[in-house]
Amino acid sequence: MSAYHPLTEQEAIDIASQIEEVFPRGARLSSREIGDGNLNLVFHITDGDSGRGLILKQALPYAKVVGESWPLTLDRARIESEALVIQQRLAPGLVPKVYRYDAELALTVMEDLSDHVIMRRGLMELGRYPRFANDISTFLANTLFYTSDLGMNQQQKKIQAGRFINPELCKITEDLIFDDPYTVSANNNYDEAIEDEAEALRTDSGLHLEVALLREKFLTQGQALLHGDLHTGSIFVTPESTKVIDPEFAYYGPMGYDIGAVIANLLLNAAGQSYWSKDQAARADYRAYLLETAQDVWTGFETKFRALWNEACVDRLAKTTAAYQDDYMRRLLQDTIGYAGAKMVRRIVGLAHVADIDKIGDAAVREAAQRASLRIGTALIKNNRRVASFGEVLNIAATAFK
Amino acid sequence: MSAYHPLTEQEAIDIASQIEEVFPRGARLSSREIGDGNLNLVFHITDGDSGRGLILKQALPYAKVVGESWPLTLDRARIESEALVIQQRLAPGLVPKVYRYDAELALTVMEDLSDHVIMRRGLMELGRYPRFANDISTFLANTLFYTSDLGMNQQQKKIQAGRFINPELCKITEDLIFDDPYTVSANNNYDEAIEDEAEALRTDSGLHLEVALLREKFLTQGQALLHGDLHTGSIFVTPESTKVIDPEFAYYGPMGYDIGAVIANLLLNAAGQSYWSKDQAARADYRAYLLETAQDVWTGFETKFRALWNEACVDRLAKTTAAYQDDYMRRLLQDTIGYAGAKMVRRIVGLAHVADIDKIGDAAVREAAQRASLRIGTALIKNNRRVASFGEVLNIAATAFK
Repeated sequence: MSAYHPLTEQEAIDIASQIEEVFPRGARLSSREIGDGNLNLVFHITDGDSGRGLILKQALPYAKVVGESWPLTLDRARIESEALVIQQRLAPGLVPKVYRYDAELALTVMEDLSDHVIMRRGLMELGRYPRFANDISTFLANTLFYTSDLGMNQQQKKIQAGRFINPELCKITEDLIFDDPYTVSANNNYDEAIEDEAEALRTDSGLHLEVALLREKFLTQGQALLHGDLHTGSIFVTPESTKVIDPEFAYYGPMGYDIGAVIANLLLNAAGQSYWSKDQAARADYRAYLLETAQDVWTGFETKFRALWNEACVDRLAKTTAAYQDDYMRRLLQDTIGYAGAKMVRRIVGLAHVADIDKIGDAAVREAAQRASLRIGTALIKNNRRVASFGEVLNIAATAFK
Repeated sequence: MSAYHPLTEQEAIDIASQIEEVFPRGARLSSREIGDGNLNLVFHITDGDSGRGLILKQALPYAKVVGESWPLTLDRARIESEALVIQQRLAPGLVPKVYRYDAELALTVMEDLSDHVIMRRGLMELGRYPRFANDISTFLANTLFYTSDLGMNQQQKKIQAGRFINPELCKITEDLIFDDPYTVSANNNYDEAIEDEAEALRTDSGLHLEVALLREKFLTQGQALLHGDLHTGSIFVTPESTKVIDPEFAYYGPMGYDIGAVIANLLLNAAGQSYWSKDQAARADYRAYLLETAQDVWTGFETKFRALWNEACVDRLAKTTAAYQDDYMRRLLQDTIGYAGAKMVRRIVGLAHVADIDKIGDAAVREAAQRASLRIGTALIKNNRRVASFGEVLNIAATAFK
């Protein structure tokens, strides 16, 4: 194609028209730019005649968050595209298909998912997704197992890890999740009403020890190829389908970070639901659905991961040492819980929030939801190394919602 | 220079003559190939007039061990050369100077250390090296701290780790140290007299769990740039000088692996000393010197590493969370002990042995030394996660020597 420049809608249409797997030759295509313009251009290309569509996602060479702009590598488009291809191979049907990748343009052409909704939005509207727990636990078990030393050639894994060295996007996580919320930082962002909570986060040395340990693992433990940003805004759903998108933060890190992200975002929505004044019964019922879903995600993951280990493990010692599998799964659960906690805390006091909480119009209700999220988040962080079953997460949540 | 081919002595002289930092123009150089021919060519180039010398080390595209030959990447010459340059910067004077590196020829031109002796040989001759514990603990503290997330820019560290992805040489370690000794393998190599010990290694599931955990850390924990093969055959000494050589196994791994290698090789020599029938008093005294040296290596490392942390740490949370440093040092000690044990076991039943033990002429004495080494090695492995002070290593050794 050509040297990097942000595409115009007409250029996007010209590129899309060459994707013959999707559009008939000579199709009359139209384009709509649907990105938020902060990180990427996203063109939704459609053919009114056939009803078919495509997404063109082009990385921009900067990130804009709350007005500030900082340069950001275009290499993240390669990482996203390569991660999607690997995830499609390991968890077929659970990520959008990639039709083309153009390195110079930092452009990925992929499947149109406009019949799906972003899961965060779906949860805010009390949607139920009966396939979700099963699908996401398959996605997690398959992508994490088969990119780890348990499930792939251990020399190939090292080379693959080299292709996913992702310093700039990792730094965003290292700063925003594992540093800023625990100190005075210009990146933090919270309502004045919870200044007491923010202060407590800054002065709790027991909490800081646990965050330092989680941060260390995020920095050093190349366990598997992570999605790296697996919140409910990175998941498209319908009642019949689940699609994980946007793996531009992909890198080799601790598995629990991905699993914890899913759990945290279910719990954040549950915290938001708990304090609405109207439809209390329906919301309590929905909260129970969310907690059950969180439990099902972990249980499904554990069952499937153990099955893969028993059937497809490539590591002799890991195959023959039964107690090792139990030890490994216990550590995965603990990491999951610690990272879930860290993800909840940063969404309340850190730079980037979640609409599940922020869109609560009533200030008192919103504050109660924020406080409940922080109670759960800090309890998960502080207890992570002691936890022996996922039931303890549900107990922590139940206590926080009292 | 030119396309890869094994150098002749004349070519080695021609290349050396261009190193003007060392040889006067027109010097009349002579060459002697002093490598063992299994992995590398090593030319010792000398100028009889000035008395000055140089080493040319050229990687061969294969490894020969016990008659077998397998292909081995020439990229290890780049890794070795780049590691030496980094180590020289971080621990000045404790590695040979690098004068040139030629990628195509897989050739490193470096400082002549022929006034030093290989430490393993020195220990076998009951040599004492009063600078050693101080020097090697400086080498370990500086190289490990300043290549980790504690001591260098955390984004640069990720990029540096990418340059030291070393799959082929890591696989040698993964197989020979963390797999073969615990199963029936054609790579194993031990005297029939200790078949009972080898059998015990193959059937001890508690031991296998610990080895699996150590193996997992070796595979996944990118903590610092390791030397990767830091036994006493990779260290040149005189009473006044210590030089660490041969970092071709360098990669980002767990710090305890390097520290444990030093400890293991001191203990192996101690095990060899303990069973000689003559000069018992002198040998007991030397064994005490070796154990004291092992203690000094750990204590020196810990003191210096903590001092670097307090003075030069780049990680905000690690700097402000005092309990985290203690937790980190405890885990480093435990890793050191676990890896020291694994290194001892493999030197008795695995492919590559140590002369300290193998050269004991009396079969009964040799067998006693082998059994003592395995008693210490397995005890270190099985206790590594419980150990709270280095004194426990000395207790384990004292018990084994009874």
